[in-house]
Amino acid sequence: MLKLFYAPHTCALASHIALEEAGAAYETVRLSFASGDQRKPDYLAINPKGRVPALVTDHGVLTETPAMLIYICQTFPHAGLAPLDAPFRFAKVQEFNSYLCSTVHVSHAHRMRGARWADEPEAHLAMQRKVPQAVGECFALIEREMFRGPWVMGETYTVCDAYLFTLSQWLDGDGVDIDNTPKIADHFRRVGDRPAVRRAIEAEVGRL
Amino acid sequence: MLKLFYAPHTCALASHIALEEAGAAYETVRLSFASGDQRKPDYLAINPKGRVPALVTDHGVLTETPAMLIYICQTFPHAGLAPLDAPFRFAKVQEFNSYLCSTVHVSHAHRMRGARWADEPEAHLAMQRKVPQAVGECFALIEREMFRGPWVMGETYTVCDAYLFTLSQWLDGDGVDIDNTPKIADHFRRVGDRPAVRRAIEAEVGRL
Repeated sequence: MLKLFYAPHTCALASHIALEEAGAAYETVRLSFASGDQRKPDYLAINPKGRVPALVTDHGVLTETPAMLIYICQTFPHAGLAPLDAPFRFAKVQEFNSYLCSTVHVSHAHRMRGARWADEPEAHLAMQRKVPQAVGECFALIEREMFRGPWVMGETYTVCDAYLFTLSQWLDGDGVDIDNTPKIADHFRRVGDRPAVRRAIEAEVGRL
Repeated sequence: MLKLFYAPHTCALASHIALEEAGAAYETVRLSFASGDQRKPDYLAINPKGRVPALVTDHGVLTETPAMLIYICQTFPHAGLAPLDAPFRFAKVQEFNSYLCSTVHVSHAHRMRGARWADEPEAHLAMQRKVPQAVGECFALIEREMFRGPWVMGETYTVCDAYLFTLSQWLDGDGVDIDNTPKIADHFRRVGDRPAVRRAIEAEVGRL
């Protein structure tokens, strides 16, 4: 059975939502970042990166949200969570997910994970000051150039929606007003109302 | 016909190599970062992110290296550049590419692109000081935990090899001794000897 290792308030939620949307049979294991669970030997044996998420499958362990999301799509093709048989549209899903992981998530991470990229506390503060602008510009670009509506890819809900929703949750903490991007604000409410999404969030952080 | 927009010494080389390995018919368009080509209206109409690479296809424009690499694999399946019919092994290719774009490339980018994440010159210098350690740790993790040998994914050359080679080129400038990771150092030499790789590099920066 699939087993998802996650920590609350992380990008692991995207994969958690995808598993719920797919109707997958799976277990979850919660890590506490406050307790440093992600750096303990038991977990490093599963994911040597010491990060979440990780998905244990019958074939081995998977990490990295874009890879996990597409694996879930391919393992549960009838859920229709990605256009698996249309290479260009599939590539557009991949492009969107890649932008979220390599640019949007990274811009956000400079608020709390500055120690990855500099040692000096002053530099961490400088990074934090830039987060509202950097993250805000990413979401403005998504709103203007990528979001098709009503879902990210157009008429069909895909894993891109779960992933965008997950990162949209962080906007408030990042000092970005989601209403600056009204299509994404509306999307955030609609995705948040989906039963699968409510189940994933409730499992991670309790009743809404 | 496919058209690749690239700039020399960027991650666009990975897609350029993949096109060569696939035997694709394609054109290239070189952008000069020194001239700010990537910020000019003509190019922003193609890629609003103002970055490279971008791949113009008959269906539309693609960006983001992991998406482009897999699109090339799927468009030229006989080249065998990814295990397209084995979802878990495919996911491992995706996991590797995602790690390169979201963690390794990002660690490298703090050497010259600090303005993305902070405004103060002192913060940029602090980021630059950390690059050898941050990039070095990424490559040590790849060497220890991900690289199977003789190629990244084992017995078969895949787009992961083109992508790892592209980022390995940057190690010297990042202040990381590639010989700290002997398997990757050997891989770098072997990939660099491939005819397709030599053709792509020669097209970008002239004869080796």
